[in-house]
Amino acid sequence: MIDFIFNPSSIAVVGASQEEKKVGNAVLKNLINGYTGKIYPVNPGRTEILSLPCYPSVSAIPDRVDLAIIVIPAKAVADSLKDCAKAGVKGVVVITAGFKEVGGDGVAREKEIVEIVRSAGIKMVGPNCLGVMNTKNKMNASFAAELPPEGRVAFFSQSGALGVAIIDWAIENNFGFSKFVSFGNKADLNETDFLEYFAKDPDTDVILGYIEDVIDGKRFIEIAKEVTKIKPVILIKSGATEAGARAASSHTGALAGSDRAFTEAFRKTGIIRTSGIQELFDTAEMFISRKTPKGRKLLIITNAGGPGIIAADTADRLGIKLDPMTRTSIDTIAEKLPSTASLYNPVDIIGDATSERYKIVLDQAIKDNSVEGICVILTPQAVTDVDNIADVVISSANNTDKPVFATFIGGQRVRNAINKLKGFRIPCFTDPSIAIHAYRKLVDFVQLKSKEISDELQIKIPEQNIEEVKKIIQSLQSQGVSEIGGEEAMQILSLYGFSFPERALAKTPMEAVAIAERIGYPVVMKVSSPHILHKTDVGGVKLNLNNDKAVYNAFVEITTNVKRVMPDAYIEGIMIYEMVTGGKEVIFGVSYDRTFGHMIMFGLGGIYVEVLKDVSFRIVPVSEQEALEMITEIKGSKILDGVRGEKPYDKTDIANCIRKLSKLVMDFPIIKEIDINPYMVFNNGGIGLDARIII
Amino acid sequence: MIDFIFNPSSIAVVGASQEEKKVGNAVLKNLINGYTGKIYPVNPGRTEILSLPCYPSVSAIPDRVDLAIIVIPAKAVADSLKDCAKAGVKGVVVITAGFKEVGGDGVAREKEIVEIVRSAGIKMVGPNCLGVMNTKNKMNASFAAELPPEGRVAFFSQSGALGVAIIDWAIENNFGFSKFVSFGNKADLNETDFLEYFAKDPDTDVILGYIEDVIDGKRFIEIAKEVTKIKPVILIKSGATEAGARAASSHTGALAGSDRAFTEAFRKTGIIRTSGIQELFDTAEMFISRKTPKGRKLLIITNAGGPGIIAADTADRLGIKLDPMTRTSIDTIAEKLPSTASLYNPVDIIGDATSERYKIVLDQAIKDNSVEGICVILTPQAVTDVDNIADVVISSANNTDKPVFATFIGGQRVRNAINKLKGFRIPCFTDPSIAIHAYRKLVDFVQLKSKEISDELQIKIPEQNIEEVKKIIQSLQSQGVSEIGGEEAMQILSLYGFSFPERALAKTPMEAVAIAERIGYPVVMKVSSPHILHKTDVGGVKLNLNNDKAVYNAFVEITTNVKRVMPDAYIEGIMIYEMVTGGKEVIFGVSYDRTFGHMIMFGLGGIYVEVLKDVSFRIVPVSEQEALEMITEIKGSKILDGVRGEKPYDKTDIANCIRKLSKLVMDFPIIKEIDINPYMVFNNGGIGLDARIII
Repeated sequence: MIDFIFNPSSIAVVGASQEEKKVGNAVLKNLINGYTGKIYPVNPGRTEILSLPCYPSVSAIPDRVDLAIIVIPAKAVADSLKDCAKAGVKGVVVITAGFKEVGGDGVAREKEIVEIVRSAGIKMVGPNCLGVMNTKNKMNASFAAELPPEGRVAFFSQSGALGVAIIDWAIENNFGFSKFVSFGNKADLNETDFLEYFAKDPDTDVILGYIEDVIDGKRFIEIAKEVTKIKPVILIKSGATEAGARAASSHTGALAGSDRAFTEAFRKTGIIRTSGIQELFDTAEMFISRKTPKGRKLLIITNAGGPGIIAADTADRLGIKLDPMTRTSIDTIAEKLPSTASLYNPVDIIGDATSERYKIVLDQAIKDNSVEGICVILTPQAVTDVDNIADVVISSANNTDKPVFATFIGGQRVRNAINKLKGFRIPCFTDPSIAIHAYRKLVDFVQLKSKEISDELQIKIPEQNIEEVKKIIQSLQSQGVSEIGGEEAMQILSLYGFSFPERALAKTPMEAVAIAERIGYPVVMKVSSPHILHKTDVGGVKLNLNNDKAVYNAFVEITTNVKRVMPDAYIEGIMIYEMVTGGKEVIFGVSYDRTFGHMIMFGLGGIYVEVLKDVSFRIVPVSEQEALEMITEIKGSKILDGVRGEKPYDKTDIANCIRKLSKLVMDFPIIKEIDINPYMVFNNGGIGLDARIII
Repeated sequence: MIDFIFNPSSIAVVGASQEEKKVGNAVLKNLINGYTGKIYPVNPGRTEILSLPCYPSVSAIPDRVDLAIIVIPAKAVADSLKDCAKAGVKGVVVITAGFKEVGGDGVAREKEIVEIVRSAGIKMVGPNCLGVMNTKNKMNASFAAELPPEGRVAFFSQSGALGVAIIDWAIENNFGFSKFVSFGNKADLNETDFLEYFAKDPDTDVILGYIEDVIDGKRFIEIAKEVTKIKPVILIKSGATEAGARAASSHTGALAGSDRAFTEAFRKTGIIRTSGIQELFDTAEMFISRKTPKGRKLLIITNAGGPGIIAADTADRLGIKLDPMTRTSIDTIAEKLPSTASLYNPVDIIGDATSERYKIVLDQAIKDNSVEGICVILTPQAVTDVDNIADVVISSANNTDKPVFATFIGGQRVRNAINKLKGFRIPCFTDPSIAIHAYRKLVDFVQLKSKEISDELQIKIPEQNIEEVKKIIQSLQSQGVSEIGGEEAMQILSLYGFSFPERALAKTPMEAVAIAERIGYPVVMKVSSPHILHKTDVGGVKLNLNNDKAVYNAFVEITTNVKRVMPDAYIEGIMIYEMVTGGKEVIFGVSYDRTFGHMIMFGLGGIYVEVLKDVSFRIVPVSEQEALEMITEIKGSKILDGVRGEKPYDKTDIANCIRKLSKLVMDFPIIKEIDINPYMVFNNGGIGLDARIII
């Protein structure tokens, strides 16, 4: 573990400076101001800095050094790290900038220092970062002036500037942090390492972070999945508008995009995503109580109609259920409340509500099994005893495992009560709409956690089929083919259990008739030629052929048409296909994200995907539950239940197709993209009509 | 006008009290504490209160009284208002509760006082309200303890409790108000009156409000439309989840809902809607500069990458365009900025940015015609000179008509600069995502304002057609019919210019053939009987009949089928219809909202409306521009452009249908609901297949 970075027993500051305004001075001062372990300034030009003995190098320090903070010019960092390695330093924080982020030489410099620390077994934060902080041991190993208040929320940031701003904000808003790290270029330690560490940190209840990308998506997913089982993780991932997907060559690729991959990665791991800074902290506020609701049912208690309605509107919009309490509960509170109170949900205990009235409803709501979470709203009206009400909320909340959160609207008149509530880890807001939005994230978290996503794929593909696919792909690769068209794509997919129309190539009219007789009428006939892209345009396609005569004539006709229009095209023959009728058109796809790997796509075909972009994605491996979710997630999902008197379409077949694709790309990661479009799903089973694979 | 309510020269407090904690004491004290006009306590039991001479009644006051504040028990209010009338009082603020909101006797009491004030020509605020405030003349005619700071934002609230909380919040957050009114039950003066007044108030730049419903929707729309031309109006309308629409009997009605009507009313009038309290004030903050952008192009200037990306992501998601500056501009700033700066959009002037760097980019952006708005982001990094940068932003912003807003992220280190910026009416935020959301509302406002929605309907319906519809409706009404089915509904709609298939009733097989010959093959035949609801189920429908023989046989077959299955049904004959093929299925509808009246609905038919609920609405009268917007607004709109090689469908015909319906319900407001479903639109024109009207 990397505990020596946050809890070192000794720290060296390489580049410590006596000069005010220098970063090496700021860092040293910040350490002296709080940290109680041993501090060793390192600077070959001095023997003492800020009354501490100064050393020419880390290896010259007579004591063992756990952590070194590096604030010297970029060019000197490599040598300094070698010296750290010699001295047996465990961790380094390279604040110095001028590495990968500046391009050119910087890239090589970064590569060099990574090699040094990795071969020495040193763990490195940075380079190009603000530093690290631990409020518990008062260690401010950064150049930000002040430590934020102590609290139970850990924060990591890819942006140092945002880190500075957030610490400044936290101080003013009395928002407590346990630990803070700005990891800059994250050349060695990255988001996944800190997720892993904060998960085990006993001083941290909630993990927040700001990231712009993820290093090693597979490991991130693997670790994050475990971390969210222990603690909530709430992240801002910016850069959503990145144009990465534009160059994608397939339909699926164009719909995917890298931001979509992040959304899916977060979903898969149970990470809560927010898009704004304020939203990040509002969400964190809701998680500080560490209590989670059993379901979506929330009771609102208010002393004012308006804010109660705003909360109810928001809840309704976000799918939070506002069921009333049980009949017994309502009867119980009715006896004790004035007749003008509204007893359902929101429970409106009226403008002159005392703390006693809040207590009556809170106590009953806690007992009532139909209440899964409680929102207490207060406006500071003429007779409102704000502080007493806060006390009642605190004692009630301490008496239950249900989440209880408060919305005390106002300024000066509610300030003290809010601080009191927060002191007892009761989430407190000043806007009902924001409070309910944050609650929705809590509900999301519970739902995400409740899913036991099994990676084990039930889909079994016979070993010899996998071998055969391997041969086909190898052969195509050796021919330099990267886009695998109809026939071979269908062959590969068939070996993984997909159905395609029965079909065969006829070289003569008589052969065509024989094939059609075997397949059964009606059939479809298409010219087969490597030179013809748009078969219909050259009269190369005939549909719905019902008998031998029609097939015979169609063969002759197609051949004549094509020869007339494209006399030089080489005609391999005419493909005879089973004609598929009925069914609902859907589309399956695979895209590849450079961070998280393969994603499977599903959507309703035709206009739904082209115009409405109504598709769902999941990162591979896709479990059965995830596959079923992909189906219900699309807006047009009801269409598959059968509308206008149709029978329901076969969702099990759809889910199986998704999982077969998941298995295929796991077995053959060389596959980059797949489109199966259209695929016709029936009431029982389904069949693909066209497919392409890109390797 | 009602200026005497906010600027009275004399005020009587009816129910003034010497006793601390009584509302009559609080109101009087609040007035004494700031208001400099004449104050007359009224209380028959005393001769002096708080050192002011006290009168037994308003009419006993020797001076003329402009405004009376009423804080006596509900039962005594009526008599007191009569006394006010006698004394020639112009306005009253009835703080007293116990009227309509308590039901029972309260309803009658409210009716009585409304009659008294209306017949006396007195304007009344309330009853059941917090009171009114004017920060300019320091008048606090309410029982809220303190006046908010002076500012240029007016606020009205239907909820007194929310009003109290917001004033408390405003004081702590230094948010300035010009005027404040809590209008409680709004028995006399309501939201529309205050909109009208604040529009003309020279001390108000932005109008905010909280409402739960609207009294007289037609007048609200009419006035609000004019007000938003002068000043932005930003409202919370709560109660969105009201179940009003559930009972609606038609397809359209079920999709409408009263919240939808509010959304449409706000759109029609140019009112900005927000759903949360914080969002309301964040939006107001963006409007305080009174500058509006020409278009959607925004330039972001930042000294930190992360927050810049967050802003850019949000902008992209909300449709704000981040075009770079012109080549010339980029070259100009490139010369003056460090080489590591990013020159496009966001312009990243790097962590060590000075105020000079901000000035270089700001000056160029102001000159550059491709920049329509400017967002200045700052994080307080080590060398950031926050206050100087604020000064640069202020002087630049004062030099341009383009909106310039700031996002200074942090706490203590940016506080002073933020206050400075706000002092110069430069919108300032601490979260880039919130800032961009607010900017989007500003862009919306510009767009809403730029639309000159003409109520003049181009659709002309011949007078005799209108007369004929009148006769049909009168006749149906006299028969007690409220649901008008197929034939009559088609007749009414045909008179308003809708096309339906050619059709006629045949009594004999020979007549059927004659009709079919006249209409032209193919035809559809359906049994006509008042007793048969599901015609297909009894074998009463035949499609696609191509010749005389088929029609003759179908007549016989249908008659036989129906007689066998339902021997007692009265058969009027068989309807012969022109068979409609091709075209795209759409749906038109009319619903009725009790606040705003008729709304027209449009959507793609079938699954699009049933499963995806992809429909648009507009309140009547619907202009041509609005009708065209209704078409582009639906998600599947592209389908009408023709996909997969189809020709575009006739949008002009669709827009005309919408306007014909608008005209029809304006001419016949007795019509409550209409469904034309399906309507087949072709490349040129269209035709309805079924219709029903509810009166």
